[in-house]
Amino acid sequence: MTVAKSIKKVRKIIQQQKRKGKTIGFVPTMGALHNGHLCLIKAARNQADFVVVSIFVNPLQFAPDEDLRRYPRNFKKDESTLKKAKTSLVFYPDDKTMYPKRFSTYVEETRLSRLLCGQSRPVHFKGVATIVNKLFNIVEPDTAFFGQKDYQQAKIIGKMVHDLNMPVKIKILPIIRETDGLAMSSRNLYLNPAERKDALILYQSIKLAKELVKNGKTNTELIKSRIRGLVNSKNTAKIDYIQITDTETLESLNKIEDKAFLGLAVYIGKTRLIDNAILRSKDNSK
Amino acid sequence: MTVAKSIKKVRKIIQQQKRKGKTIGFVPTMGALHNGHLCLIKAARNQADFVVVSIFVNPLQFAPDEDLRRYPRNFKKDESTLKKAKTSLVFYPDDKTMYPKRFSTYVEETRLSRLLCGQSRPVHFKGVATIVNKLFNIVEPDTAFFGQKDYQQAKIIGKMVHDLNMPVKIKILPIIRETDGLAMSSRNLYLNPAERKDALILYQSIKLAKELVKNGKTNTELIKSRIRGLVNSKNTAKIDYIQITDTETLESLNKIEDKAFLGLAVYIGKTRLIDNAILRSKDNSK
Repeated sequence: MTVAKSIKKVRKIIQQQKRKGKTIGFVPTMGALHNGHLCLIKAARNQADFVVVSIFVNPLQFAPDEDLRRYPRNFKKDESTLKKAKTSLVFYPDDKTMYPKRFSTYVEETRLSRLLCGQSRPVHFKGVATIVNKLFNIVEPDTAFFGQKDYQQAKIIGKMVHDLNMPVKIKILPIIRETDGLAMSSRNLYLNPAERKDALILYQSIKLAKELVKNGKTNTELIKSRIRGLVNSKNTAKIDYIQITDTETLESLNKIEDKAFLGLAVYIGKTRLIDNAILRSKDNSK
Repeated sequence: MTVAKSIKKVRKIIQQQKRKGKTIGFVPTMGALHNGHLCLIKAARNQADFVVVSIFVNPLQFAPDEDLRRYPRNFKKDESTLKKAKTSLVFYPDDKTMYPKRFSTYVEETRLSRLLCGQSRPVHFKGVATIVNKLFNIVEPDTAFFGQKDYQQAKIIGKMVHDLNMPVKIKILPIIRETDGLAMSSRNLYLNPAERKDALILYQSIKLAKELVKNGKTNTELIKSRIRGLVNSKNTAKIDYIQITDTETLESLNKIEDKAFLGLAVYIGKTRLIDNAILRSKDNSK
């Protein structure tokens, strides 16, 4: 496994692989790797000859009041995790490499980015689109892998790739959960033991929604109201949003026709957690 | 020479060429081709194995009050010009191909784009950056060629490529002029005979500035004021801007130290013309 800190080194290695006819699989991350990331790397390993993982905590996607400074960083641990996962190349640039002085070009998706998390995090997805655009141009992957945990992010990246005609395929892989159901996230490290327990309320909300849909409920106001009641039963929980939307446009739905996207963002103490599921009114198998 | 209207067809042809190890040279245009374009194509021909020219009048870079509708279009004539110039592939998409329904991703350079032409055309360069980004992703050129006539545009594209780490080289080639000095432009077709004569005032302004610099004048206010006087002597002329700036940052200069960018935008009747030159205080050759 090679660790490259410079763009030049990445390009050189990638070009060598491409000249040999190898396909490139890419998993962009912010480090603090967990099993969710490992599943993405495994999928990349299965589908591509050469697997690149980037680790970069992207300042552009954090607002000034957000958790950029305390976001967990542990490169040594991540490096050994990636080695075990048979990663071919780790791209681990510093801030100046990605955003040199006088940096002034941004990529912005303007439709999906305004909804859901975009409402409480207005600069977030512009930062995400810009960094992923840059990473795709550096790594030139055939396929890039994203987790459904960040469903809106993955959809925005898919839209960017589509709109800007980027020559990359996007794969979205299922949410990986702890045994008790909490969706894996680097931010789970922020939770104290009491909060860790209360955080289960997100997964319980999803189970409740699925149960309601299974029992024939299709009115989204009713489902959201039942979830609100459940979440508000926890003292540490504060709802950012509970939304049921079209799976592609992410626009609110009044009624679930066939399938719908359920997105939740809930503060547990000071930690903002998100979770989601696709609700299916006809076929209720996961 | 192949004419491709679909992105799929372009990609297929380009991939074939790349697999053979051929280099791709690219000249993006809005058609209405003149000798300026032909010089770019010739340069591409000299430096690359396979030359792609795109013809697309990009609606995104025109404001509602600008000349999108009357912009000159003559594909048959352009096609025969391109054939004679030994173009390998012409990409000639329609609006829906480039901007399908629900298109929502934009690329914006935010520093250079605000200056010079950006002040009177606030949406222009966002449209340019977005379409050129898309075209680069479709054509995947090794080198793309731009004319110095649109110096600010070329610099913004260079900045976009740099900031977003696009794997493309940008070449800027000198302004091509009519025998009397008018910079070649598709928009010269708008001029009536009287305006065509008055339009020479732009080139005369450049000659005046060069003469002043040659005679040791370095105060930019003085030079701009002399140019203003000259342009205002023409009844049909109305100054949009006359600026002397740093050649890279495009920020205004008070004094010409070594070299500087002189940019002019002048309405001749209803037609907005631009011209420019690099002023050199030490070496006054060209």
